[in-house]
Amino acid sequence: MDDDHARRLLRTALDEARAGLAEGGIPIGAALYGADGTLLGRGHNRRVQDGDPSAHAETDAFRAAGRQRSYRGTTMVTTLSPCWYCSGLVRQFGISRVVIGEARTFHGGHDWLAEHGVDVLVLDDPECVLLMREFVHRRPELWNEDIGDD
Amino acid sequence: MDDDHARRLLRTALDEARAGLAEGGIPIGAALYGADGTLLGRGHNRRVQDGDPSAHAETDAFRAAGRQRSYRGTTMVTTLSPCWYCSGLVRQFGISRVVIGEARTFHGGHDWLAEHGVDVLVLDDPECVLLMREFVHRRPELWNEDIGDD
Repeated sequence: MDDDHARRLLRTALDEARAGLAEGGIPIGAALYGADGTLLGRGHNRRVQDGDPSAHAETDAFRAAGRQRSYRGTTMVTTLSPCWYCSGLVRQFGISRVVIGEARTFHGGHDWLAEHGVDVLVLDDPECVLLMREFVHRRPELWNEDIGDD
Repeated sequence: MDDDHARRLLRTALDEARAGLAEGGIPIGAALYGADGTLLGRGHNRRVQDGDPSAHAETDAFRAAGRQRSYRGTTMVTTLSPCWYCSGLVRQFGISRVVIGEARTFHGGHDWLAEHGVDVLVLDDPECVLLMREFVHRRPELWNEDIGDD
């Protein structure tokens, strides 16, 4: 996947992150695209909005896509490097590709995914960095809760 | 944690697995216990019942427990070795201990968890083995879908 195409897909995840922020939530968004490029599902972190600690952006997008027989050829696009929970999701279900907005404010499991054959692209998008940097500065306790950091 | 105590906790996860089976679902159950031994949440796989591929037993129990400031000292009890998705959950949130009913019918990420400091206990419980063996024999396509096996 070329960078321009990946950046277009990232817009969907960024829109989700901003929607989450507008709801008072943690601004991380994601989208799952099919092998043919169709959008299968999109979502954002819902810890605050739904009181649901299991709803990370990637799991919310995965959930929205519903049951799928195979994830071969699919692409998970996320505004932030996926944590171990979301990296485990990608590995278990054989999602082929992960497009990541940024990995500066949080470095999750994407190196591990690359080692295990997942095609990983980190875009280092300044809007994604800014969104998280401002959020973590403003709500450090909420961010730590979301990644299980005591 | 001694074996007898672990086996008592496993009853809750087994009850959940059987409840899932009675609903026509995949018979895997889990429960999350606090550091002080209180039950924080319990749940089971809901792929079939809710059409939700993100609801594995462990994530369902984690969700049912709601927001927690820390998972230090908690125990995740599950009838089956946790897949990468659920193993990632345990690692990310710093769940201290995993009690596993069996790892014969499916070997997930529990060795990886042990390498990363999680206290892992595999009980090799015959009821858990029987429940999964019969299910996988009867519904192989559904089982493969649940673990992302093409």
